[in-house]
Amino acid sequence: MTRFDTRLERLERALVAADADGAVVATGSNARYLTGFAGERDRALLFVVTPDGERLAVSPEQYTGQVRRAIRADGVHLHSVPHNSARSVARGVAERLPASHGRYLIDEELSAGELYHLERALPDATVDLLGPVVTPMRATKDESERRALRRAARLTDEVSRAVREEGADVVGTTERELAVEIRARLHERGAEGVAFPVVVASGPNGALPTQYRHGDRTIERGEPVVLDFGGFFDGYASDQTRTVVFAGEPSASYVEAHDAVREALQTGIDRVEPGTTGGELDAAVREVITEHGYGDQFTTGTGHGVGLRAHEPPSIAPGSDDVLEPGMVFSVEPGIYVAGEFGVRLETLVLLTERGPEVLNDSPYTWRPP
Amino acid sequence: MTRFDTRLERLERALVAADADGAVVATGSNARYLTGFAGERDRALLFVVTPDGERLAVSPEQYTGQVRRAIRADGVHLHSVPHNSARSVARGVAERLPASHGRYLIDEELSAGELYHLERALPDATVDLLGPVVTPMRATKDESERRALRRAARLTDEVSRAVREEGADVVGTTERELAVEIRARLHERGAEGVAFPVVVASGPNGALPTQYRHGDRTIERGEPVVLDFGGFFDGYASDQTRTVVFAGEPSASYVEAHDAVREALQTGIDRVEPGTTGGELDAAVREVITEHGYGDQFTTGTGHGVGLRAHEPPSIAPGSDDVLEPGMVFSVEPGIYVAGEFGVRLETLVLLTERGPEVLNDSPYTWRPP
Repeated sequence: MTRFDTRLERLERALVAADADGAVVATGSNARYLTGFAGERDRALLFVVTPDGERLAVSPEQYTGQVRRAIRADGVHLHSVPHNSARSVARGVAERLPASHGRYLIDEELSAGELYHLERALPDATVDLLGPVVTPMRATKDESERRALRRAARLTDEVSRAVREEGADVVGTTERELAVEIRARLHERGAEGVAFPVVVASGPNGALPTQYRHGDRTIERGEPVVLDFGGFFDGYASDQTRTVVFAGEPSASYVEAHDAVREALQTGIDRVEPGTTGGELDAAVREVITEHGYGDQFTTGTGHGVGLRAHEPPSIAPGSDDVLEPGMVFSVEPGIYVAGEFGVRLETLVLLTERGPEVLNDSPYTWRPP
Repeated sequence: MTRFDTRLERLERALVAADADGAVVATGSNARYLTGFAGERDRALLFVVTPDGERLAVSPEQYTGQVRRAIRADGVHLHSVPHNSARSVARGVAERLPASHGRYLIDEELSAGELYHLERALPDATVDLLGPVVTPMRATKDESERRALRRAARLTDEVSRAVREEGADVVGTTERELAVEIRARLHERGAEGVAFPVVVASGPNGALPTQYRHGDRTIERGEPVVLDFGGFFDGYASDQTRTVVFAGEPSASYVEAHDAVREALQTGIDRVEPGTTGGELDAAVREVITEHGYGDQFTTGTGHGVGLRAHEPPSIAPGSDDVLEPGMVFSVEPGIYVAGEFGVRLETLVLLTERGPEVLNDSPYTWRPP
């Protein structure tokens, strides 16, 4: 039995428990998780899973060969439809669902076009969302997922080190040039895509977390540059941040803030244990930043889950009730953002194992060039 | 007035004509087309456009700074909502739509989660699809789009030339290694992502168009390799195919088939003119392949539109009624697929200008290495 069969069987049991007559799964992260094949943009494809173990891929005829080869779960039957369109696959699904009056859980990653046609083909069905059933399954990673996430982190660390080693050569280039280079370096190592737009935020741009990616600003001596990036490797995301001064000496206030963030990060890592909530972990990290006098300048949450998506549960943020459990992988990423001056953020991924936290990223935390 | 305002005004007029009370536009290609900002994965964002000229972006509070900076259309107001979730933005849209009983056209690229929450927040509204209104607008490209597509094609041709120049060095590498390299080369030149998974199909794998991308097969001397790839550059896709023999002499039957495909491609390009249907263009190309005795081995359509998506209208395929008009950009890609032996495909993008066809790709068509 493959890991995909194990997951599909869990989903089938969850559908029984949820009293649902079936799940409709879209191309994307759930399809990748359950069947091994995420599908492709511009190629319509839907999956049906029923509580009594029927597994179906509904594909346009011209792509069934690809789908058959790519699916790695057992016992998935192919149902081909004539056209590569949302309407055609949605009608194909409607034909094959067990009952026109059933209750079906639909993957939030379906397109609105697919849902629209599905609802019109099944006017008497009840539609609910699949997320509440499948999200908890995906939050704890199995062995193969842990391996994939370790590998993605390692390859991303290689890029982090390579960029840092350019040292003073980076001075005078623009944020955008460095971002394009980082993207190319991720792809050289086999990334299928970036996990999110590469952040190269120099000087005052570093003080705009969540708001700024990169622009045409030139990187200068003595100024910190927030470097936050990740890629998808074999479907799994990486995500890490270092804040580097490529040449020259930064301000004393920056060095002080960097030290505080470094301490907060270590405190966060040490605080990771089963049963802790995301809110508690966030509070522990935030306390260190606050003690150093920067409480108002840590303007983001502390972290988020990472897996087949770069941002997924659990949430490590003020008030989060998400409970940390063995198998979860998430970021810890404290920061200090001084408006108009600089930003500093350090981020690593942590896998909570049965024996405690395992830090997945190992590139140096220091702001100093090599 | 920017090009985005021109497009939004066209949409507003189209909404009047369609007797709709508003459009709900998702992140993705329509948002990029209408506002200049496609949005980001993992960040909820919806746009509302009404026939009387209201333009609204509904964004989670934490990202409004980014959205404000990124939108390039005038007069777009921001409405912030508390959470980064489909539910939060859908409710924000529902609050701001002109009437709870209205008729709204929704972008097929919304997620099913967004549509689900929108329908529940507006139980008395009528929902229809936006595609029929916006797809014809997007099919004919304006000047800035033509420039972007020319540039994307040129950068992709550079990669095509660079790969060909490796000549005999490619022999002995695997398809996958070459695909990873091609992806990295596209990103080196600034691609934001690949337009579709890179095709490196060697020997008999070349005979599986639409079914095969790349695998672990080693590329051998004397065998043809189908190289089909493209990237997104400034949002716009490229897409071209060459079939190359990196070293040694291929079979006489391959050379003959390559000559036939080359002739069919030229015939297709010459046949492009306003008023021709996609079906007629396909028939003209197919006739050449058939005359050479390979009619049964041209198992795909002849081409597809390219723009902010790699595959969009018009369809150049048997029976297509899509009428070619000035401003359309589409692929012409005849092929011959000999099961178990080899495939050959040549593809270029063509822009139909007011003065006739303009071929966007100029890398050599020959199968010979440099």
